[in-house]
Amino acid sequence: MTKIKLTIEYVGTNFCGWQSQPSRNSVQDAVEQALGKYFDCEFVRVYAAGRTDVGVHAKGQVAHFVTDKDVNCYKLCLGVNLALPDSVAVTHAEKVPDQFDARFSAISKTYCYRVYISSTRRPLLDTDHVQLYRPLDVDAMRKASELLVGTHDFCAFQKTGSNLKGTVRTVNSFDICQTDDVIVFTVNGNAFLYNQVRIMCGLLVEVGKGKYSLQDVQTMLNGTKLKFRTLPAKGLTLEKVYY
Amino acid sequence: MTKIKLTIEYVGTNFCGWQSQPSRNSVQDAVEQALGKYFDCEFVRVYAAGRTDVGVHAKGQVAHFVTDKDVNCYKLCLGVNLALPDSVAVTHAEKVPDQFDARFSAISKTYCYRVYISSTRRPLLDTDHVQLYRPLDVDAMRKASELLVGTHDFCAFQKTGSNLKGTVRTVNSFDICQTDDVIVFTVNGNAFLYNQVRIMCGLLVEVGKGKYSLQDVQTMLNGTKLKFRTLPAKGLTLEKVYY
Repeated sequence: MTKIKLTIEYVGTNFCGWQSQPSRNSVQDAVEQALGKYFDCEFVRVYAAGRTDVGVHAKGQVAHFVTDKDVNCYKLCLGVNLALPDSVAVTHAEKVPDQFDARFSAISKTYCYRVYISSTRRPLLDTDHVQLYRPLDVDAMRKASELLVGTHDFCAFQKTGSNLKGTVRTVNSFDICQTDDVIVFTVNGNAFLYNQVRIMCGLLVEVGKGKYSLQDVQTMLNGTKLKFRTLPAKGLTLEKVYY
Repeated sequence: MTKIKLTIEYVGTNFCGWQSQPSRNSVQDAVEQALGKYFDCEFVRVYAAGRTDVGVHAKGQVAHFVTDKDVNCYKLCLGVNLALPDSVAVTHAEKVPDQFDARFSAISKTYCYRVYISSTRRPLLDTDHVQLYRPLDVDAMRKASELLVGTHDFCAFQKTGSNLKGTVRTVNSFDICQTDDVIVFTVNGNAFLYNQVRIMCGLLVEVGKGKYSLQDVQTMLNGTKLKFRTLPAKGLTLEKVYY
């Protein structure tokens, strides 16, 4: 048996997320169907580094699968991509040792959240950026993001209704970069709670608006949830998984 | 009568170009229909800085129109955008003096041509970038682009079959910027021949591949057309019109 690691890029707009669903409209379904077609067999199960939500994009999702077929990784990429819809592509394939696991071998993940500041829609940015209407104080957001870096109990940074017990996570880095009217939040962490990245970026946006202070960020880190909107999925991209 | 200058952003993918067509599937048609709806009148004619071809995008197309209605430019933007499809938006509107003309008052235009280097498709870049398969020699392309800057007879840089008499144009600047696997060509000029930007960038790509030399660029500037493919429309974006 051969184990293959795939790096996968996708525009999440028209998918119900990574994970396979009865509707079959997930990225996982698309990849499994394309592999099945390529290998001319009934079913290939792929295992990803992590699920991405409905509407979330990926530049570097990673998944593995095993096969008893002889695999040429270069040909595999080209062949599978022919069978995939335009919004998904395998950008890299390589043979990996048996003990590699896309999910459990992952050391950390980097996500980007992208916004643009404009009173009007921006069609060229619309696929993977979220529109915000007023300028943000980027310096204040940077100071607040520094508080999020480190190992904390992020229990107040998960989707309402989540009842996960272990909510301690480590954020390794948090960068905020502004170019003209586009602001990109780049966060790397060992693992994230459900909606954690979107909630962290949403809190920073409130800080950038002047609605919340550094003290309020600390309050959230102490476990008290503050009220603000979770940012939409379409601004979020899984950029890279580190092994 | 009031004259209004509009700045318009669009994803050209699903349009037959800027200019109105019997099919009504042009950006101009979309803008005119939206203005008609906003002003609740039968027809508003808009005049653009220049046509863009089928599939070409714009971040900063400019157009003007006249109206006898009272105009609040901020409300106009919001209202017209509600009537436009998602792929088009008016990003700015302002009152301009009567003598302003979107086409004839323009001093220069900046276009970007975007490519990415990858052996596989890249769905997140696909809308406004063109895939190239092998690395390019960016230094060689930069040297070649310097030859194109200035006032030249660009007769060999227009679409085959064009029979324009005056083919002297001025390229004010030509920048090539590489970030990871993305290369952006940015060119500013007073005016361009039909397909000139795509042909110039196509020639530079051939130089980057090592197929053509600086001497070959000079040969083209001397009026002899060399053989290479005109790059696809979807990599081209009209970035800005200067007045």
